[in-house]
Parts: sequence; structure tokens; C-alpha cells
Amino acid sequence: MNIAFIGLGNMGAPMARNLLKAGHHLYLFDLNKAVLAELAAMGGTISTSPKDAAQAGDLVITMLPAAAHVRSVYLNEDGVLAGIRAGTPAVDCSTIDPQTARDISTAAAQQGVDLGDAPVSGGTGGAAAGTLTFMVGASAALFDTLHPVLAQMGRNIVHCGEVGTGQIAKICNNLLLGISMIGVSEAMALGNALGIDTGVLAGIINSSTGRCWSSDTYNPWPGIIDTAPAARGYTGGFGAELMLKDLGLATEAARQAHQPVILGAVAQQLYQAMSLRGEGGLDFSAIVKGYQKPS
Amino acid sequence: MNIAFIGLGNMGAPMARNLLKAGHHLYLFDLNKAVLAELAAMGGTISTSPKDAAQAGDLVITMLPAAAHVRSVYLNEDGVLAGIRAGTPAVDCSTIDPQTARDISTAAAQQGVDLGDAPVSGGTGGAAAGTLTFMVGASAALFDTLHPVLAQMGRNIVHCGEVGTGQIAKICNNLLLGISMIGVSEAMALGNALGIDTGVLAGIINSSTGRCWSSDTYNPWPGIIDTAPAARGYTGGFGAELMLKDLGLATEAARQAHQPVILGAVAQQLYQAMSLRGEGGLDFSAIVKGYQKPS
Amino acid sequence: MNIAFIGLGNMGAPMARNLLKAGHHLYLFDLNKAVLAELAAMGGTISTSPKDAAQAGDLVITMLPAAAHVRSVYLNEDGVLAGIRAGTPAVDCSTIDPQTARDISTAAAQQGVDLGDAPVSGGTGGAAAGTLTFMVGASAALFDTLHPVLAQMGRNIVHCGEVGTGQIAKICNNLLLGISMIGVSEAMALGNALGIDTGVLAGIINSSTGRCWSSDTYNPWPGIIDTAPAARGYTGGFGAELMLKDLGLATEAARQAHQPVILGAVAQQLYQAMSLRGEGGLDFSAIVKGYQKPS
Amino acid sequence: MNIAFIGLGNMGAPMARNLLKAGHHLYLFDLNKAVLAELAAMGGTISTSPKDAAQAGDLVITMLPAAAHVRSVYLNEDGVLAGIRAGTPAVDCSTIDPQTARDISTAAAQQGVDLGDAPVSGGTGGAAAGTLTFMVGASAALFDTLHPVLAQMGRNIVHCGEVGTGQIAKICNNLLLGISMIGVSEAMALGNALGIDTGVLAGIINSSTGRCWSSDTYNPWPGIIDTAPAARGYTGGFGAELMLKDLGLATEAARQAHQPVILGAVAQQLYQAMSLRGEGGLDFSAIVKGYQKPS
Repeated sequence: MNIAFIGLGNMGAPMARNLLKAGHHLYLFDLNKAVLAELAAMGGTISTSPKDAAQAGDLVITMLPAAAHVRSVYLNEDGVLAGIRAGTPAVDCSTIDPQTARDISTAAAQQGVDLGDAPVSGGTGGAAAGTLTFMVGASAALFDTLHPVLAQMGRNIVHCGEVGTGQIAKICNNLLLGISMIGVSEAMALGNALGIDTGVLAGIINSSTGRCWSSDTYNPWPGIIDTAPAARGYTGGFGAELMLKDLGLATEAARQAHQPVILGAVAQQLYQAMSLRGEGGLDFSAIVKGYQKPS
Repeated sequence: MNIAFIGLGNMGAPMARNLLKAGHHLYLFDLNKAVLAELAAMGGTISTSPKDAAQAGDLVITMLPAAAHVRSVYLNEDGVLAGIRAGTPAVDCSTIDPQTARDISTAAAQQGVDLGDAPVSGGTGGAAAGTLTFMVGASAALFDTLHPVLAQMGRNIVHCGEVGTGQIAKICNNLLLGISMIGVSEAMALGNALGIDTGVLAGIINSSTGRCWSSDTYNPWPGIIDTAPAARGYTGGFGAELMLKDLGLATEAARQAHQPVILGAVAQQLYQAMSLRGEGGLDFSAIVKGYQKPS
Repeated sequence: MNIAFIGLGNMGAPMARNLLKAGHHLYLFDLNKAVLAELAAMGGTISTSPKDAAQAGDLVITMLPAAAHVRSVYLNEDGVLAGIRAGTPAVDCSTIDPQTARDISTAAAQQGVDLGDAPVSGGTGGAAAGTLTFMVGASAALFDTLHPVLAQMGRNIVHCGEVGTGQIAKICNNLLLGISMIGVSEAMALGNALGIDTGVLAGIINSSTGRCWSSDTYNPWPGIIDTAPAARGYTGGFGAELMLKDLGLATEAARQAHQPVILGAVAQQLYQAMSLRGEGGLDFSAIVKGYQKPS
Repeated sequence: MNIAFIGLGNMGAPMARNLLKAGHHLYLFDLNKAVLAELAAMGGTISTSPKDAAQAGDLVITMLPAAAHVRSVYLNEDGVLAGIRAGTPAVDCSTIDPQTARDISTAAAQQGVDLGDAPVSGGTGGAAAGTLTFMVGASAALFDTLHPVLAQMGRNIVHCGEVGTGQIAKICNNLLLGISMIGVSEAMALGNALGIDTGVLAGIINSSTGRCWSSDTYNPWPGIIDTAPAARGYTGGFGAELMLKDLGLATEAARQAHQPVILGAVAQQLYQAMSLRGEGGLDFSAIVKGYQKPS
């Protein structure tokens, strides 16, 4: 299949590699020439613009850092919508606000293009291993079209509803995740300060009503989970700056929807304070350091 | 076995019933004469004071509403410590602050009595069914002594460490629970406001990093979990006033330990605001109503 | 003086009236024909577009609801920058984010136009009475040019620094105001619940370290300040929706600057919850109702 | 006048000195022998117990660190109530919870003693200079009796209502103060990050609706107020640990009164986090350091 793939950063490049390995022909665009050269060596074709790539593809996939990039990649003079043929399916895998996802999709529809959103979870590790989760906002027909290709880059391909719902699912999940991680941090640090063994405490929580992914799989307290970032100095994993980005999307979407998110807003500010202390490059579970005496 | 059982309220009475059914002889004390009469009809002996009951028992169990009651039941002139024989094991199943648990245990030790704490989770339903979880703070020897009796009232009997750690485990777990439930409420209400199907959203969360007991077992949004209080108008379950009590214990213990609990403190205040609105008698998951337009 | 005045809403219309009364000739633009007709009857000239008005003015003043309107009024094909002559001073009195203020000013500078920002405080009452405060972000020369005209619409004309600083001053002040009002609400409601006379409490606060405008001038508790919205059912004054808008600008500017605003974010969410309860149309001091038993 | 003065710490000692200078005869009790010796050298008489001091006084004044000390000083076997004569007026100047103040007063009344509460503000500087503010909870008759003596230690002697209201006034004021200081810190730090001159920003706030004592008298940003702790490395002033104590009293009183204090609870936790970072010994305005990049 001829696929236009635009945006080859930390996530996009390994995703494109998996599509190349699966036998697709890729028309590639990014501002980074080194990554273009590397993927060309694997058989991809370098395009001169998003428009150029889109003209050549039977499917368009984009993976970009933020909404502003999505807008320009699709809507600029040399953008995707200037090149894409009517009837070509398209999917944006960037994590952006739901409204922009809908706006771009509406613009695409005016040219006969069905454009969905499919943000991912699983990080750079999941992108390399082809085990990402895709949360897909798309019409039923578009979802059926996209599914086999997305399945070559990921393991869980979830249909969330119409366009925009992929973004909604992701920011709602990450809103809860950002809160839960702080909740676990407070519970573990309090238990430690009060004198219970933290391993025992985690065991009780994980078999009780406090049970959650942030405790049983990704516990922020060192010594609880061998495979969690807490076991390796909070390196790797899901950086606090990325959590900040997602909480910013969630609280801004909430503001536009006139919907309160009280703990979510506090969580965002606590990660922001963590970032101000110079720890934004650590995994987001390092938020627990704010509950420990400085060493 | 002769057991002194003091405190026969909503939790204590069904727990005592299970011990009577298991064949123990109970020496009972409570201020409520009706419940005493009922349990006497099942074979229990009514005592005239905690001291009187303690004198007769080979094991003392207490189940009281708050720390002030525990102090008076143990330390008053006609209290447990005035009657109990040296060497008699004792356990307090009340949910109170860890410091009071330790203080009472220290006072008991001065009379040769090994007193542990074993707060429960599982609610009145679990008490009646004999499926409670006991979080036990006790010496290893006392834990071994208590285990078979507690197992006649509950299903999970967890040894948390020395005296006080049972309380610590419970308040740390419930601190996290109180936070998680609000986190789920905010995520579900935001998703709903933004236009995703709430059933789809819950499904995604429950298989992703937002997964938690408050979402996959006790989801506050109506229509998600048939067995959750949300499906029956937030009746039954774990009342918001009880959550308020536990969050009060957690934040007060944190204050004494000089340990911050930021989201925990906000959560406590949000349940307090819910109570002020007249909804404190509902299950704590009704906190979600604060995120919905009033009907 | 020939002045182009664009944006004649609840604030702009009374401001324009004061300029007409002061003897200026106004070239007016708004989408609302009724207000145009009314001001034309006072001697103003109706323009057909922002461009048309700007062409005729020796000074351009805009007063618009939000950043999106400011962008289109200045940058559209028939916008201010399409008509304004090089060298003509301009000032935007809208309350918007500092970055948009700077962006528009940069665009204006490319055409030889010095454009400042001058958001106001004082509300519709101050606009009618000509007693507004203008917080002006402008070069020193532009400030000197604007001062006499702004002084015909307001009482305090404060130079905050270069362009954008007017907006910064306003959102920082209102961030603090939004927090203080909730602080006063909590203190008054707590004192009332604990049993002190609220008038006595307000008196003590106002002569002590809790002293603030939200307490001594605009106290949210009924019966304290005769002239405050609390004395008239929270009508008039500064609507909660406007406070929400300003807190949204503050937290979004903070997010872009990577700066935490913890209490500010909580305050925003509490006003959002107030709005969800259907009370967004009341004065923002009605936030105190969330701390009182519903009647 | 013969006055029993019990509690001669950082606040009590300078208060007692002012009474000695005013010509009263003092019967002194404290556990610190050095301060007793110093005050005896000024003419005071050393008592052997609170009971001993109370027996000798025509007025009893106490100034103690916390509620537990107040309980023991009044209620112990050798306490004030064991020695005081019926009809002797008494006043406790400690800052404690309103309920303990009322409990002790009730116990005193049973012996014919009218006991009021009169917590102070003004710090050790005000105690030395005799410029304290006394917030007095007392019957009208007791207030009249106490006034001339309190006026020898302070400048503002405010009658707040019946016993307990002195404490209520103090904790409500300091609840608001703790919130306002964080609000000012967030506003100043945000303005600085966005690029306005902080001196200009403070000037605008202080003449606008953000105006408050924490900004115009005690601004936490260095370089704004020459006499504020910010100008001397946050030394002196009102320590963060004392603010933490008062916020703890406020939130605990709120809990008992079933009254939410949302921003107050967050403020308490932020000062607690500041204390955990090792900055609890600084003036409470050093909370602003949490909003600045670490140097």
C-alpha cells in the first residue's frame, strides 16, 4: 500500500519503520533530514512537502507534536489538503485538543476526505515494539479501513466513536492517570511517614479499593515494582512534561466545555511545580519526590 | 471460646452474630439494650460494663465509632483495662487514628495485655456475610492468636506490622480511594461533556493506565456498572460521611507527621462540600453529582 | 479629534458616549445596528467595516469580547490594519491574553503603527461614569499620546510598561482577586459556623492582616457592606463568568510561561463549578453560596 | 495589682516584662528557670506551680504553646483551677482551638471563675513593644476588667464576643492571611514570568481590587517592601511553622463544624510542603520560593 507518513519524531519514526517492515511503500515528510535519509535507506521515498506526500499516498498518516503543527501540516498552501485526492482516507495520530481534530476533519470533508483521529498510548517503547494502543475517532467505515494498518503498529485498536473521540478518550484517561499517580504518591509517602512497611502497604492497596495501575504496575515508591521507572531513577517512561501537555489539553477542553475538573487542575499545577524545580525531564511518577524530604 | 465483645452497632452486631454462630460464647456490652436483648436470645451473655465483659473473656474484641469511645471503653474506671486479666489477648476493630491505637496498646501492655488494632473494610454487607477484610496491626504472636477468630468474621486477614499499622493501612488506602473516586468522576463527566459515549470511555479507562477500582468496580457514572451504588441512586455502599471521617483521620495523621497530602486535603473538602449540600448520606461515589448540571 | 471606535458592547458603548460628549468625532463600527444608530444620533459617523473606520481616524480604539475578535478586527481583509495610515496611534482596550496583544502589535508595527493594550477595570458602571482604570502597555511616546483621550473615559491611567504589560497587570490582579474572594468567603463562613458575629469578624479582619478589598469593600457575606452585591442578591457587579474568563486567561498564560498557579487553578475550577450550578450570571462574590447550607 | 502569669516563652516573657514595668506584682510560673530568674530580678515572685501562682493572684494570665498545655496548666492537680479563688478573673492568651477554650472556661465557671480567651497578633516584636492586638472572647464584665491590663501589653484590645470568639477571630483571620499570601505569591511570580516589572505590578495591585495586607505591607517578592521579611532573606516575622499551626487549627475547627474550607486546606498543605523542603523556619512569606526557579 502507498502511504504518506508525515511527522517522523520520537514516535513517528519507529511507527513508520514498522510500516516499512510490513511491506508498505511510504512517502515520507519531516523537517529532520537525518531521519528521512535513514528511512529512505529502508525503502521509503522522500517527499518535498506534506502536499507532495499526500498526492502520492492511498492513505495519509500524520504524527505531530501539537495542534499548531497539525493545522499547518494540513491547511498550509503546501499542506496535506492541497495534495490529497478525494476519497483517500487519512488519520492523525497526534495528541491534540478534540476541537482542532474536529476542525481539521471538517476541512478535509469539504474535499471529500474522511479524516479520523487516533492518538496513541504506549510511548516510544510501544512504538518501536509495535504494541501501541490506538484510540480511534472515526466513522465506522473509516475505522474498518484504518484497522489493518494501525494493527501493524499497535496491539489494541479501539474504536471510540466519531472523529474527536479518540482525543477525548486519551485526555480523559490521562487526566485520571495524572491524578491517580499523585494519589498513590501521597498514600505511599504518608504510610511511610507513619511507619508502615511500604511493600506491605502497596500489597494491601493492590488487593483493596485503592487498587490502580499507578500502584500495582507503576508504583512511584522505589522498591515496590522492579520494572517501574522508580526502580531506575525515574528515567525512561512517560515524562512529566508530556503529562503536563496532556493535563493542559484536558483542563483547556474542560474550560471550553464549561466543565469543572478540580483535582485535575491541582494535578496539572503540581506537575508544573515539579517542572519548575527542574524535574520535568523525569518520568511523571517522580512527582513522589515532592512528598519526600530532600536528600 | 469465651469472648468479650464490646460495641454492637451497625458493624459490631453482625460481627458478633457470626461469632455466636461459630459456637463461641460472647459476653456483650453496648448502650443499646435492644441489640443486647437480640444477641442474648442467640445465646450471648449481657455484661454490665466493659470491665465486667473483659473479666469474663479469654479474648476481648471492641468495635466502636471513634477514638473518644475507644479511649473511654478501655481506660475508664469501669473499662476493659480495669477488668482484663494479664495475658488475655485483645483487639480493637474500630477505625481510629494510629496514635490512639498505639497509646491504648501501650496502656494495655503495662498490664500484661497484648492489644492489637484490626480495622475492617467491606461495610455492613461484608460484616453480615462474614467477608470483611481485617487489616491487623499486632505482634506476630498476637496475629497468630487472632487469626482464626477474625477468619470467622472475614475473608482476608492481613498482617500489616506492629500495632497501629492496621489503622495506617486503612487510612492510606482510603485516602487514595477518596482521591481516585473524584478523579474518575472528573474524567467521566469531562468525557460526557466533550461528547464521548461514557460506556466506551469507561471501557477504555478500564483497559488502560487510568484503570482503578473506582472505575472498573464502583464507577460513579450511572449506567456503567450494574452492581455499583450509581445504579441504585447512590443508596447503600460506603457513605460520604464515612469517607469524610477517614479522610479526616488521614489528613490529621499527616499533619502530626508533618507530611503534605495535597490532593487528599482537597478531596476531604469536596466531600465536606457535598455533605453541606445535604448529600452526605449518599454513597461517596455521589461526589460525581457535583460535576453534573443540577436536574 | 477624529477617532475610530470599534466594538460598542456593554463597555464600548458608554466609553464611546463619553468621547462624543468630550467633543471628539467618532467613526463607529459594530455588528449591532441599534447601538450604531443611537451613537450616530449623538453625532457619530457609522463606518461599514473596521478598515473603513480606521481609514478615517487619527486614533483607533477597539473594545472587543475576546482574543479571536481582536485578531479578526485587526487582521482580516477589511480589518483595521488594512485601512489605518502609518503613524496613526492605536489602542486595544479588550481583555485578552498578553501574547495576542503582542502579536497584533507586532503586525501593526510592520505597517508603521504603534499599537498598545489598555484593558480596563471598573465595569459597566465605571464605563458610564467615566471612572475606569486603564492599565496601559505601550511605548512611552504612545502612552503620552493616549493619556488625554483615555482620561476622558477613566480616572486612573496607569503605565504598566511595554505592549502586553497592560494585559499582564490585569490578569495578575484578577488572579489574586479571584483567590482573595474565595479566601474571604471561607473565612466568613467558617466564623459564622463557629459562632462569631460576622460583622465583628469582618471588622477584625479589616483592621488586621487579613485585610483586603474583597473583605473591606466587597465583602461577600450579606449584611456587611451596604454597597456590595451581597446586599442586593449578588446582582450587578462583576459577573462570575467574567471572573472565569480572566482566570482562564491567567492560568493559560501561566501554562505557556511554565509557571505554577496552584490556588489560582483551584479558584478557576470553583467558579466553574458555581457556573455549572447555574449561578454564573451572579456577581462573582456569590461564590460564598457554595459555603452556605442551601436554603 | 497581683497577677499570676503562667507561660514565659518567646511571647509570654516580654508580655510579663511590660506588666512588671507598669508596676504590677507578678507571680510567675514556667519550666524554664533562666527566664524565671531574669524576671525575678525585675521584681517578680517565682511560684512553684500554676496552682501556687493562681492562689496568689488577683488576676490569672496564661500564655502557652498549644491546647494540651492549656489543659494541663488549668486542669492538673497542681493546676490553676486547683488554686484560684472564686471571683478571680482569668484570661488565656494562647492560640488554641475554640472548643478547648470553651471547655476550660466551663470548668472554670464551675468554680466561680470567669475565664476568657484573648489570643494575640503582632509577634515577638509586638510583645516586646507592647503593641500587640488582643482578640478577646469574654463576657462584657470580664472584658471591662481585663481591658486596662491588656492595654499595658497591647495597642488594640478588641471584644469579639463570648468566650471562644477570640480564638475564632484569630483562626479565621489567619486562614485568610495564609491564603492571601499564596495568592500574592502566585500573582507576583506570574507577572514576573510574563515580563512585567514587579514593582509596577505591586503598585497596580495595591491600588486596585487585588489590594491586601500581604501585598501592600508584607509583599513576599524581594525588592517591593523594604520592611518586609522578603528584604532580609525571610528571617524574623511570622514563621511558616506558626502559620501551619494556625491553619491546622482552622481546618480542624472547620472539620468539627462540618464546614468546607477548600483553599484553606490547599494553603495548609502548601505550607506543609514548604516545611518538608526544610524551609519551615523561614517567614511564611517565603512560600513564594515554591514559585521561583531554584537558584
